[in-house]
Amino acid sequence: MAQWIVAEPVQRLVEALERLPGIGPKTASRLAYYLLRAPDNIALDLAGALQGLKENTTLCERCFNVTVHSPCPICSDPNRDQSLLCVVEEPLDVVALERTGAFHGLYHVLHGRISPLEGIGPEQLKIRELLERIEREPIREVLIATNPTMEGEATAMYIARQIHDRGIRVTRLARGLPVGGDLEYADLNTLTSALAGREEMRTDDK
Amino acid sequence: MAQWIVAEPVQRLVEALERLPGIGPKTASRLAYYLLRAPDNIALDLAGALQGLKENTTLCERCFNVTVHSPCPICSDPNRDQSLLCVVEEPLDVVALERTGAFHGLYHVLHGRISPLEGIGPEQLKIRELLERIEREPIREVLIATNPTMEGEATAMYIARQIHDRGIRVTRLARGLPVGGDLEYADLNTLTSALAGREEMRTDDK
Repeated sequence: MAQWIVAEPVQRLVEALERLPGIGPKTASRLAYYLLRAPDNIALDLAGALQGLKENTTLCERCFNVTVHSPCPICSDPNRDQSLLCVVEEPLDVVALERTGAFHGLYHVLHGRISPLEGIGPEQLKIRELLERIEREPIREVLIATNPTMEGEATAMYIARQIHDRGIRVTRLARGLPVGGDLEYADLNTLTSALAGREEMRTDDK
Repeated sequence: MAQWIVAEPVQRLVEALERLPGIGPKTASRLAYYLLRAPDNIALDLAGALQGLKENTTLCERCFNVTVHSPCPICSDPNRDQSLLCVVEEPLDVVALERTGAFHGLYHVLHGRISPLEGIGPEQLKIRELLERIEREPIREVLIATNPTMEGEATAMYIARQIHDRGIRVTRLARGLPVGGDLEYADLNTLTSALAGREEMRTDDK
């Protein structure tokens, strides 16, 4: 019964919204009825942005980040450190790292992580392209910034082994307590990592 | 800096998504990058549904629910009780009530509630149309099903006063404990309403 009491165009939108991650039936309904009430341009701007999304973007031929023109602005920037390469899982990770303003090298986006459960092996990721890049470009350090998860760690380990013995420094992001976090609530693994990676205190007076 | 590191078409989608209620910058980014990765039809189906939403729907001339053809299927159904009219704030409330399968009358959608803070008075709602309908149609009972909020109650009271003295029964949905709820966690107002509206226990052996 719930089928025909919702007008078909609304039901169609609800179903399209439900396919997005994290949006359940209730949220989808609420969004659809919000869009019905809202000024026309809210729905139409969103429709236009969705249509232009894949049409107007591509992957950078060098780092595989999402870009309008390839090579992307980061790869094209001569002021970036060409010898330092940061390997990340997803384009969103590039955004997160750029926001820090603390990294000035180049990136390489894997587009996923090794995940036997999901049937994702190294050949589905941009790992071959990474190794070719390391041969071709004057890279001296590869900073592996995969997620600190089981799968991210396995991916990091796999890549580190591939790069090994090429005279390149392989590093990863530090593990430890999140800034602003509470030691009491830190999980065992994080606390263990924080202990193992303990750092010298630096005092201002040298 | 965070501006130009996100490709413009992606940024445009993030901004369009951020305008939806309950979707913040993080969720918008995650959805946009999900749509980039997902099969083309996920984004294009959504775009199509958004474009068709207002084009292909209208409000029912009788009950003001969202519909493809006016009058809507509910108003056109001769099997519905034409003497019982349920007044709701929004089209979604019709969906919720229809899902119960326990209401067989007609609806009237106000499209909002009286809210002085938001500058919404009776004239912005379909209240005049409701009163005209009551004059015109053989309605014997008006069930006011506005939300059990301050504004919903005020709207219900306003409408009840307008209908008063026309020989029509005016009712509202029962207040009480939500089914499956826990008395211990019920708020004061709900518990007070549940006490005031206490009902005779019915036993199966008559």
